[in-house]
Amino acid sequence: MTAENERLQKQIAFIKEIDKVKSIFRQTYLADGTRKENDAEHSWHIALMAVLLKEYVSEDVDVAKVMTMVLIHDLVEIDAGDTYAYDSEGAKSKREREVKAADRIFGILPEDQGMDFRELWEEFEAYETPDAKYAHLLDNFQPLLLNDASGGRSWNEHGVHKSQIYKRNEKVQETSEEIWNTIQEVVESHIAKGNIIEK
Amino acid sequence: MTAENERLQKQIAFIKEIDKVKSIFRQTYLADGTRKENDAEHSWHIALMAVLLKEYVSEDVDVAKVMTMVLIHDLVEIDAGDTYAYDSEGAKSKREREVKAADRIFGILPEDQGMDFRELWEEFEAYETPDAKYAHLLDNFQPLLLNDASGGRSWNEHGVHKSQIYKRNEKVQETSEEIWNTIQEVVESHIAKGNIIEK
Repeated sequence: MTAENERLQKQIAFIKEIDKVKSIFRQTYLADGTRKENDAEHSWHIALMAVLLKEYVSEDVDVAKVMTMVLIHDLVEIDAGDTYAYDSEGAKSKREREVKAADRIFGILPEDQGMDFRELWEEFEAYETPDAKYAHLLDNFQPLLLNDASGGRSWNEHGVHKSQIYKRNEKVQETSEEIWNTIQEVVESHIAKGNIIEK
Repeated sequence: MTAENERLQKQIAFIKEIDKVKSIFRQTYLADGTRKENDAEHSWHIALMAVLLKEYVSEDVDVAKVMTMVLIHDLVEIDAGDTYAYDSEGAKSKREREVKAADRIFGILPEDQGMDFRELWEEFEAYETPDAKYAHLLDNFQPLLLNDASGGRSWNEHGVHKSQIYKRNEKVQETSEEIWNTIQEVVESHIAKGNIIEK
């Protein structure tokens, strides 16, 4: 086996390994309500949204970087599982579980690519740079749109409060005034329908 | 409704509409063989592969553009359905069905974005530019890797011939010698296992 072939074999091993993210299911229903969506579907959706909604972001963002960031942001869930956005118990051990997962999964790649992806994932997690803030905006906005389309079922099933959604989206306004306004409108309409609990 | 709000509403309508691609199933099984994969999962996978495998492409490619291209390349199947790679009957009406689908689906977006996506999709379909050739390489290589991982089941079920696979991949060699060599190795190993028919 040549050195070049060994490198490609590591990349192929990674490509096959991450296929498992298609079996990590989230709490969000598809727009048509037929089933819950998985991490690969969710990541596909927000990568495309990164292209479509860039014009609403007030700061300079690197869309190609944000796309890659969102395509990989949930890979750690292959080992760590999906922690529901409003699961405060699960949140406590989330970081530890995910760091261990990142070591293993990004470690399958050739070292340079593994380090690039690890850094991108850490930047996403830190939620501080304009690119990370845009990625989080997309990560939150997409399930909100699906929840809206599917009649608010996921909020209803989990007894979600407006304050929880606003807490989760507290940095959205500084990234995009327009998207923040839309989030508020959707939340208010589902409070009126009884799917989200006021306060 | 302000003009800006009207624009965002069109983008949101598109984001909700394309959710349907998560229900368009392909003939490829997941790596673990548990079920077939859908277009959204497939598109997520190859968008990430576009980042990982760029180093093997002999011509200059724009990875961000290729990522967007592959993220949207199957949206027409929402209306036109998935035509299996080796379905020669279905292939006859494929173009007509897909053009009609493209008119409707990309037509949901604001005009400028709809035109951008339409052009990207046409560039993919024409299969001539380095970016389109790289996108097709990825579109072919990913199911080959999944078929390999899942024990060649999909090839077996469809009685696929080596010549069909080589015909479909005939432009791969000019894009990447290394990937072409890998494809040949995988095909040969599955001929030996009786999953692909020699000649």
